[in-house]
Amino acid sequence: DVSAVDSKSSHQTYTFPGLVNVAAFVPQVAVPNSKDFIDATRASVRGGFTTAVVIALGDKNGIVDHQSLEQAKTNVSGSAYCNFALCVSANANNSRSFDEELKAEARALFIPFGVDDTPIPLSSVAAHFASWPAEKPIMTNAKGSDLASLLLLASLHNRSIHVTDIQNADDVLLISLSKAKNLKVTCDVSIFSLFFTREQFPSSQSLPTAEDQKALWQKLDMIDAFSVGSLPYRLASETRNTASPASGVEEALPLLLTAVSEGRLTLDAIRVRLHDNPVQIFGLPDQAQTHVEIVIGRRAPFRKHPSCWSPLEQGFVTGSIHRVIVHDQTIFLDGSLSQTPLGRDVTAATISHAPSSTTSNLK
Amino acid sequence: DVSAVDSKSSHQTYTFPGLVNVAAFVPQVAVPNSKDFIDATRASVRGGFTTAVVIALGDKNGIVDHQSLEQAKTNVSGSAYCNFALCVSANANNSRSFDEELKAEARALFIPFGVDDTPIPLSSVAAHFASWPAEKPIMTNAKGSDLASLLLLASLHNRSIHVTDIQNADDVLLISLSKAKNLKVTCDVSIFSLFFTREQFPSSQSLPTAEDQKALWQKLDMIDAFSVGSLPYRLASETRNTASPASGVEEALPLLLTAVSEGRLTLDAIRVRLHDNPVQIFGLPDQAQTHVEIVIGRRAPFRKHPSCWSPLEQGFVTGSIHRVIVHDQTIFLDGSLSQTPLGRDVTAATISHAPSSTTSNLK
Ligand SMILES: [Zn+2]
Ligand SMILES: [Zn+2]
Ligand SMILES: [Zn+2]
Ligand SMILES: [Zn+2]
Ligand SMILES: [Zn+2]
Ligand SMILES: [Zn+2]
Ligand SMILES: [Zn+2]
Ligand SMILES: [Zn+2]
Repeated sequence: DVSAVDSKSSHQTYTFPGLVNVAAFVPQVAVPNSKDFIDATRASVRGGFTTAVVIALGDKNGIVDHQSLEQAKTNVSGSAYCNFALCVSANANNSRSFDEELKAEARALFIPFGVDDTPIPLSSVAAHFASWPAEKPIMTNAKGSDLASLLLLASLHNRSIHVTDIQNADDVLLISLSKAKNLKVTCDVSIFSLFFTREQFPSSQSLPTAEDQKALWQKLDMIDAFSVGSLPYRLASETRNTASPASGVEEALPLLLTAVSEGRLTLDAIRVRLHDNPVQIFGLPDQAQTHVEIVIGRRAPFRKHPSCWSPLEQGFVTGSIHRVIVHDQTIFLDGSLSQTPLGRDVTAATISHAPSSTTSNLK
Repeated sequence: DVSAVDSKSSHQTYTFPGLVNVAAFVPQVAVPNSKDFIDATRASVRGGFTTAVVIALGDKNGIVDHQSLEQAKTNVSGSAYCNFALCVSANANNSRSFDEELKAEARALFIPFGVDDTPIPLSSVAAHFASWPAEKPIMTNAKGSDLASLLLLASLHNRSIHVTDIQNADDVLLISLSKAKNLKVTCDVSIFSLFFTREQFPSSQSLPTAEDQKALWQKLDMIDAFSVGSLPYRLASETRNTASPASGVEEALPLLLTAVSEGRLTLDAIRVRLHDNPVQIFGLPDQAQTHVEIVIGRRAPFRKHPSCWSPLEQGFVTGSIHRVIVHDQTIFLDGSLSQTPLGRDVTAATISHAPSSTTSNLK
């Protein structure tokens, strides 16, 4: 309730552990000489994320074999602003070409749906389930009956699966039922799905309806993680605005923090979904002395990234990122990003993560 | 191999127990004053079936509530030539209207897919799974990702499910995987799918491709039952020929027996899939002193039912139905059907079935 916030005389600060940009979308992830990957890591840090799990699929390109994986690494080599982990993307034909080396070099397998006109045949998906290493996550953006197929295969192969960008009540129901029966399924919702609707942007097919959005909020306890994903990029394209690797990344935390000041969300709920669970789901190494300091309760116009459109362009937010500290070094402070790229490739790192205790409020 | 058969000097007879017409299709099952149901039971007996499990869905009509169930019963009342059991069909809205009486009066729940343009939403299907009596079968004609959804729901609700009219390699794979993980899933293939292909009838969308048909034969040990189903009716319509409640019913056994004489199938394999398994899957009462005598190895033109087209119209078969005996009475002999309708409604009967031992060859 806005008046309660406005009546507060002062703002509040809070320190998160380093946040994870789950399902980070890089439009030209595997396109030679593209700067998108570097830009995506830059936007991640400005958005309060110290690690990005880069989804394997860009805009009409993707990491689907050893060559494209190496291309993605080359594109970001020595120039990453945040840590990153890479996935590989399944397609109809590549399960047999995934050798041990490639499997070792990827953090997770991404099984895309709704990207091409020709969906991946079930037999190919089943082949991927049969051959992908048991200890490495499988991730999908499947929806509806495609999601049911994937959940069935995960159940049949007794595997964990992470569902990214869930958007409607039916999918939430499927995942709830699956969790109730102890299927190892986790999911994330794109943060934009919680704050923008198809009704607000009638030209968009990517956003949920207001009704579906309501269901997402009601079932928030079933949702393990928050993501940015490709939705903001698609929304920008659908509304004929400029899209970039930064689309939606810097909006993410301010939107969530504004919901906190409105009493719709807690800081704990954010930490769990942007740090604790993502680290666990993707088996990410924990970053020592890494913190994100945020300010909450100070109403201000959203500071839009200059290179791309934002649905918050005319909007106000009541939360912002004050400082990002990695290994005790400040790499972002009040809008300014350090010029030294300190990010590392953590794809192959498998350090286990101790439960976080960085939950105290700092005034 | 045809020459081996032709060189046989004499034919062979064999006695099956009363066969079950699983997923019997009645075009106007719930249309007032329709004779289709009676005709379907007549065709069943002529085809060697002594019990028909009538699928709840006709051609643009169906058994979806108490009123339509009573209509179907009225249509066949006192005039059934074989025993029959009725199913009810799920739709998007009727899970809440199924009261205890209706559930008691139906043998199984049929969940149709691909019938209307608007598929049943997953939430409605889930509601049916949650409310349908645990001891009564659920049956579906779902394919592809719809099938995966149903298998997932069956797995999550720990329920058995019977899949009728499976047709392609992917669906066989899904069911194989599910069986391997001890999901309680059974399936049937329409007999026409084993003998006719889309390549032979290019105007048909209902038949499998030659490649899919090959997969069905290769995976025959995964297939629990043979059915007639609605496929012959749809094939007749698609080829602009006359369709009727008899479509495909009298072809079923002759086609299978011809495959036996060609060495592609055994009589045991037929008995298991037209009697043993259907009786078990649908919990049907066993019929005492009920037999079907067939002749095999005698090559003859197929005797087509006069009222409808048959893809066997110009064809030869090497198997035929000699006699059908129900409770020691001959009701069908060498093409002639008894004029006394002796069929009973066995929908609510729940007599358990002792393993059959009627497997000896009669010369
Ligand atoms: Zn490599
Ligand atoms: Zn941590
Ligand atoms: Zn920026
Ligand atoms: Zn400060
Ligand atoms: Zn009644
Ligand atoms: Zn029997
Ligand atoms: Zn006939
Ligand atoms: Zn005789």
